[in-house]
Amino acid sequence: MALTLGIVGGGQLARMMIAPSVELGVEVRVLAEEPGMSAAIAATAVGDYRDLETVRAFARDVDVVTFDHEHVPQDVLRALVAEGIAVHPGPDALQFAQDKLRMRARLAELGIPQPVWAEVTDAAQLQAFLAENGGRAVVKTPRGGYDGKGVRVVSSPDEVSDWFADGALLAEELVDFSRELAQQIARRPSGESAVYPVVETVQRGGVCAEVVAPAPHGAPRLAEVAADIGLAIAEGLGVTGMLAVELFETTDERLLVNELAMRPHNSGHWGQDGAVTGQFEQHVRAVLDLPLGDPTPRQPWAVMVNILGGPVADSLESRLPGALAAHPAAKIHTYGKAPRPGRKVGHVNAVGTDLEVVVYEARAAAAFFAD
Amino acid sequence: MALTLGIVGGGQLARMMIAPSVELGVEVRVLAEEPGMSAAIAATAVGDYRDLETVRAFARDVDVVTFDHEHVPQDVLRALVAEGIAVHPGPDALQFAQDKLRMRARLAELGIPQPVWAEVTDAAQLQAFLAENGGRAVVKTPRGGYDGKGVRVVSSPDEVSDWFADGALLAEELVDFSRELAQQIARRPSGESAVYPVVETVQRGGVCAEVVAPAPHGAPRLAEVAADIGLAIAEGLGVTGMLAVELFETTDERLLVNELAMRPHNSGHWGQDGAVTGQFEQHVRAVLDLPLGDPTPRQPWAVMVNILGGPVADSLESRLPGALAAHPAAKIHTYGKAPRPGRKVGHVNAVGTDLEVVVYEARAAAAFFAD
Repeated sequence: MALTLGIVGGGQLARMMIAPSVELGVEVRVLAEEPGMSAAIAATAVGDYRDLETVRAFARDVDVVTFDHEHVPQDVLRALVAEGIAVHPGPDALQFAQDKLRMRARLAELGIPQPVWAEVTDAAQLQAFLAENGGRAVVKTPRGGYDGKGVRVVSSPDEVSDWFADGALLAEELVDFSRELAQQIARRPSGESAVYPVVETVQRGGVCAEVVAPAPHGAPRLAEVAADIGLAIAEGLGVTGMLAVELFETTDERLLVNELAMRPHNSGHWGQDGAVTGQFEQHVRAVLDLPLGDPTPRQPWAVMVNILGGPVADSLESRLPGALAAHPAAKIHTYGKAPRPGRKVGHVNAVGTDLEVVVYEARAAAAFFAD
Repeated sequence: MALTLGIVGGGQLARMMIAPSVELGVEVRVLAEEPGMSAAIAATAVGDYRDLETVRAFARDVDVVTFDHEHVPQDVLRALVAEGIAVHPGPDALQFAQDKLRMRARLAELGIPQPVWAEVTDAAQLQAFLAENGGRAVVKTPRGGYDGKGVRVVSSPDEVSDWFADGALLAEELVDFSRELAQQIARRPSGESAVYPVVETVQRGGVCAEVVAPAPHGAPRLAEVAADIGLAIAEGLGVTGMLAVELFETTDERLLVNELAMRPHNSGHWGQDGAVTGQFEQHVRAVLDLPLGDPTPRQPWAVMVNILGGPVADSLESRLPGALAAHPAAKIHTYGKAPRPGRKVGHVNAVGTDLEVVVYEARAAAAFFAD
């Protein structure tokens, strides 16, 4: 009997796990939030991932449950584990991706470098934090934030007064960073890990816009320090599957942990075409506790540029021929989502030996879809 | 609206078209012969591809019809075309893949180099052919043969006496070849072509066992001659989609056409991991008349080794962890088919800069599944 992988969530990350699952002979099933989602081709169930009965019924027929996102509630996850269902990553790890205050506290215990931070429960505490940290800070809701949502840069507690009613907030120093990096690690339940090269990520408007793999212009020790941080977090938090650690590189050459993701991550899309084993195949292998693949880049450089929706509703179809004709070596990936302004609807990967050429190719191909 | 591609036939070639279709945002539907076939994940209909109503109902909702195999009858194909349905490759081209006598006659008209051949309708004609060609010949049924079926090497008409009742046979000289090659061409309805590097294929028991891309040890003009033959056939026969031309390289350094396939072909599986644009993506692009991708190899060498079923029914699942652990850089592709002795159930691709290492890796990983 083929191994069966159940993915909770029908978005593009689930969609991109389908192809490597099929290659490996793994039967893949998706619990989608609604019909017609990105991963619809493998959807065997539609329902609410917050509902225990829905998830339990879906999980009963699969060998391992994994996720398109980190939003499945802890009580649902723990009920599955209590029934003996293999869940990767498991609830003990996922709590740190679901709650940024818990994440900061745990990373502090592990001695991982991170920005100065504090839990603040009212305006006075935030005011004190601001006073100690130069008068400005990043404030985050502990739960539910992604792609810049639930994050504000403030200089007064008044700017997040609407948030305090929901509970404690995370205050972080405004890091003086020179750039942002991301370190990915794959880890199996039985312990084997694979380390991807640290990459540079470029955000625009709080959303990942571009990734260069490996991170260029790095000091020789940069990759080692990033890998050590990633491995320490993967082991310290008991992550299984793919872990992405978003990092700030500071102007004084330190690396500080910004955010964590316990799933395939936008910073690793380059590997579909640029690594011997891309993150989607690696995640499938890792959560099924199969031996991990080689994470080495196939070419010296890979660049990923996201395709964001614009005002043209059919831009993915109507612009595709022009993009393919102009860039026959670019790899265009789309997510089966209706373009809306700012929505991630696809990405372009380019690989090669000359970074300037590769950056140009990825950007130019993606630009066909831009407006 | 997304482009919709309809694939008739649910085998592994259809299966391997699914991933690139999804990447490009093409909706893919499969008419499978039965439930649970290789391409089941995209099967929207199950039925007999020889039945016009079945195929017509399937074809009505898609933008382009293409194929997992070449066996859809001419009358079915022509009825679709008469209704204005886009069919690629079309019946005018497919007739030459369906009937080896027509193929030989047409290639002769085009001046394409091929073995000495004749249409023989009785024992006397075959006896005459044998007498003129050294006493031995290859005899083929014009229709329905593949993977060595419908092919016999004979030294007497008695050895194919059971075949004459079904009509004329194709007799071919027994070519004194040093090795077998394959040349792939992609061609769009609007005329654009893309040329893959000529590859060496190794057959065992009439079945493709191994492919090395590009063909090693070739005289410099070899690749040019093979490409010219492929392009001349693609244009001369009006092929759309992928064309594979199986070639004999003779001991006196000529290239002679052996067989044609108008679909993705076992000799091109290496390109999934070894070419910028693999044959499955290229076929999808070509039949939808989208601009073709770059067929250039990503690495100096790619080697494909087929996985054939053996006596162990669960060999694909039970041997997978060992193969993955021993060969973390090998790319293992499986077809969702139950292993039976001699049945193609998957393949391994390996790529790299040192041919001996690449050959070893592909063979060693495939050997895990061998018995």
